[in-house]
Amino acid sequence: MSDTRSGRRGGGREARRAARVHAVVEHEPFLTRALKPVELISEEGLAILEHNADTILEEVGFEVRGYPTALERFAAAGADVDGDRVRIPRGLCRSVIQASAPAEYVQHARNPVNSVQIGGDATVFAPNYGSPFAHDLDAGRRYATIADFENFVKLAYLHPHLHHSGGTVCEPVDVPVAKRHLAMVYAHLRWSDKAFMGSVTAGERAADSVELARIAFGGDLADRTVMTSLINATSPLVWDATMLAAAEVYAAANQATIITPFILAGAMAPATSAGVAAQTLAEALAGMTFIQLVRPGAPVVFGSFASSMSMQTGAPTFGTPEPALVLYTVAALARRLGVPFRSGGALSASKLPDAQAAYESAATMIPTMMAGTNFVLHAAGWLEGGLTIGYEKFVLDADQLGMMATFAKGLDLSENGQALDAIRANPPGQHFLGSPHTLANFETAFYRSETADNSSFEQWTEEGGRDAAQRANRLWKERLAGYEPPAIDDAIDEELREYVARRNAELPDTVS
Amino acid sequence: MSDTRSGRRGGGREARRAARVHAVVEHEPFLTRALKPVELISEEGLAILEHNADTILEEVGFEVRGYPTALERFAAAGADVDGDRVRIPRGLCRSVIQASAPAEYVQHARNPVNSVQIGGDATVFAPNYGSPFAHDLDAGRRYATIADFENFVKLAYLHPHLHHSGGTVCEPVDVPVAKRHLAMVYAHLRWSDKAFMGSVTAGERAADSVELARIAFGGDLADRTVMTSLINATSPLVWDATMLAAAEVYAAANQATIITPFILAGAMAPATSAGVAAQTLAEALAGMTFIQLVRPGAPVVFGSFASSMSMQTGAPTFGTPEPALVLYTVAALARRLGVPFRSGGALSASKLPDAQAAYESAATMIPTMMAGTNFVLHAAGWLEGGLTIGYEKFVLDADQLGMMATFAKGLDLSENGQALDAIRANPPGQHFLGSPHTLANFETAFYRSETADNSSFEQWTEEGGRDAAQRANRLWKERLAGYEPPAIDDAIDEELREYVARRNAELPDTVS
Repeated sequence: MSDTRSGRRGGGREARRAARVHAVVEHEPFLTRALKPVELISEEGLAILEHNADTILEEVGFEVRGYPTALERFAAAGADVDGDRVRIPRGLCRSVIQASAPAEYVQHARNPVNSVQIGGDATVFAPNYGSPFAHDLDAGRRYATIADFENFVKLAYLHPHLHHSGGTVCEPVDVPVAKRHLAMVYAHLRWSDKAFMGSVTAGERAADSVELARIAFGGDLADRTVMTSLINATSPLVWDATMLAAAEVYAAANQATIITPFILAGAMAPATSAGVAAQTLAEALAGMTFIQLVRPGAPVVFGSFASSMSMQTGAPTFGTPEPALVLYTVAALARRLGVPFRSGGALSASKLPDAQAAYESAATMIPTMMAGTNFVLHAAGWLEGGLTIGYEKFVLDADQLGMMATFAKGLDLSENGQALDAIRANPPGQHFLGSPHTLANFETAFYRSETADNSSFEQWTEEGGRDAAQRANRLWKERLAGYEPPAIDDAIDEELREYVARRNAELPDTVS
Repeated sequence: MSDTRSGRRGGGREARRAARVHAVVEHEPFLTRALKPVELISEEGLAILEHNADTILEEVGFEVRGYPTALERFAAAGADVDGDRVRIPRGLCRSVIQASAPAEYVQHARNPVNSVQIGGDATVFAPNYGSPFAHDLDAGRRYATIADFENFVKLAYLHPHLHHSGGTVCEPVDVPVAKRHLAMVYAHLRWSDKAFMGSVTAGERAADSVELARIAFGGDLADRTVMTSLINATSPLVWDATMLAAAEVYAAANQATIITPFILAGAMAPATSAGVAAQTLAEALAGMTFIQLVRPGAPVVFGSFASSMSMQTGAPTFGTPEPALVLYTVAALARRLGVPFRSGGALSASKLPDAQAAYESAATMIPTMMAGTNFVLHAAGWLEGGLTIGYEKFVLDADQLGMMATFAKGLDLSENGQALDAIRANPPGQHFLGSPHTLANFETAFYRSETADNSSFEQWTEEGGRDAAQRANRLWKERLAGYEPPAIDDAIDEELREYVARRNAELPDTVS
């Protein structure tokens, strides 16, 4: 597989590489917000939620399942440990985290021009994560494969507004579970050179991820964070051995983790937004404290994933107002704590890249951006409550990310932006199409959508009367057809493949 | 036509009327925002734009075309009038407007429970305006008719989150131009009892609108504003006789007007957002000053409609970041001036109710809401840059308006909202589905979408695998099938119909 694709890179390889590097340099490796985050909740309101989170940690505490060393770490730090239950004195988590967790960090990419800042005024968009199914207009919905996985790694690599290659972009269900992480990490390292996420489904898979990263990046990672991986709580108020083990491996290796309570409100937390926010804070404080106890200073991101619920069926719902309120609230709580914040995504329950999908995605992504979120998983491709990644949805979502990058620059109040001389020179009733100011600004004046059709009805009809999904279908095929892999040192690629082959030989072909 | 429908209202008329009134009382006649408007632009930035608007009015001025009495009014107020050109000393418009224009007003509806507040923390959603075409999935796109017009009046009447019946919801092209306003105003008064807009296509048509309103509301309107009508500038910097004449009729009768620069950036203004904002302010200041000169204290709304442009074709584009920045900016300028603000809408260039339509609509509507807009025209139904109103689009957009109403209530920090006791009572790892707190909150915990499908893939497939537009197609038909007209006094209806019949006999059957 890799040989075939490498073979395409003969001939004008250097020229193409130079062109690619040039292209990469022209766009921004991450989005820098000129706009301040929107504060929807008062200082008093946020202080109440912080107090409630501490009350939860102190009175209810949380459970650590099957991971005794974590209990020992918490006890040593001053927690009250009773069996599996950990109760933490008011303020302890905050002081542990604030003593050592960085407010922001750089996640290095294999190509240094793609390294991303996580935290502060930066926002990093990463693709969909974790879907067992894939969808496109031609084949419909089916189980995702490693070929789908590689396709989405390539599509994210090619798109200027996806800053990050993500992690389990989809589940490659044709690869045995015990070996999947090797195939996925290799794909990120080989078919992209953007930053990526490691495996979290077992401690040893996290360790494999670290080893592969060591090979790809060359040597010790202690001074370089090159992975940001997703650690979910088992809400309400449980941390399990799988997640803690993976988190511990990453933290010990100075690699970043996103500590994320994953809450379907009404099921894993109370049905009210303020309840969800306080519990999210409590759970995240516990997880982030664990990281700092493993290795003070290890980068850690405060994550939040909250959805509402259908009253008819109990199914998760997306794009509703309540999770948007939670998002603004928890983003503000993360800022007050002083750590980077992860939330959001182009979330939808729709099965198709239709109006529901777009309305729901926008209703999460716009708050994500306005709240000043630092790391955005699921920024492109998510369908069906996360069960499915969609090719057309990916293309449509990615276009929206470009719009957000422009919006986040805010209002240009430079002399050119004010355009007062242009207005002075233009008599009433005369259009500005020929104004020197318009001509000077036209190329960059407006975001140019990749997917929107703005032509006349007649022209649109003549061109086939395609809807947005049909146009996106054509776009992802064109992009994949034009894909060329990023350069990699042949010796490094060889070493990565040897590592993967050796571990594949050691690991079983089990399906779970 | 009206006889037939009135005929359906025999039998249990009073019972149905009571049920309807009850239903209306349960929902809110307008949206009240608990959230403060988002301020994206600094005080300094806004002051620069105000200074620039005054510079434009002082140095360039604006043109009044074909309406000498307006020139006289401006001259008498202290403007420098040179031919058709009016230049206004710095600060004059602001002082005239601030001396008399109300910060907010009530627009009375025929049914008092539907009266709306325009301004302050209120947001009023009104449907699409002005489209010559209509679209639905069955018939496709075709010229709109009076039957379409009445259908949309009914759909807006039936929807709890459309607070207003709008104006030229679509152009009934099967009615001669000179008579259209009569058919439209009658439809608003007869098939809805929500607030509405009058005709602005000629002074005499505005006068007919006022007369019909007088009949419907009974007597003098001097102390009651019962119409809010749309007055557009001819940007850049022209006010024409048609609009000024209609505005003058309304202002003299104490009826409200929305003074709206309609700007395709790069054509009717410079291509930069700050340039658009300053010019919008200048044009609106001129128009609002005219209103206050006609009748000090007449309600007036600062309107803004700004779109970006396709660099390929010159076509207007929607849902792009630049108009959203303009929207936030001009909303803040209106707040500083102290008048209600109109902007936004579910704007899209798409020809279909597809993902493009939804993404673009959300990218305008969410900023509309966050910016604290008071009056939102085009809140449902808009397609194809406003050329078309869509039945399915209307249904999908209206559902989003409900979400905004919930979002605008903000975070509930009551004891029930905080849910701390529920968390205290719930051990780690146990779900909240059976918690008394969840049971007590479940009914109202989450916005329940009318159009989203959240069921499993299997169930969705079994139910036909319909996309959002196909589900919306079913919904508008169901709603229209269940429509019953609001009550009206038979004598008033008779008088309205007599007025319409008399004027129809007087007016020509011309097509323009």
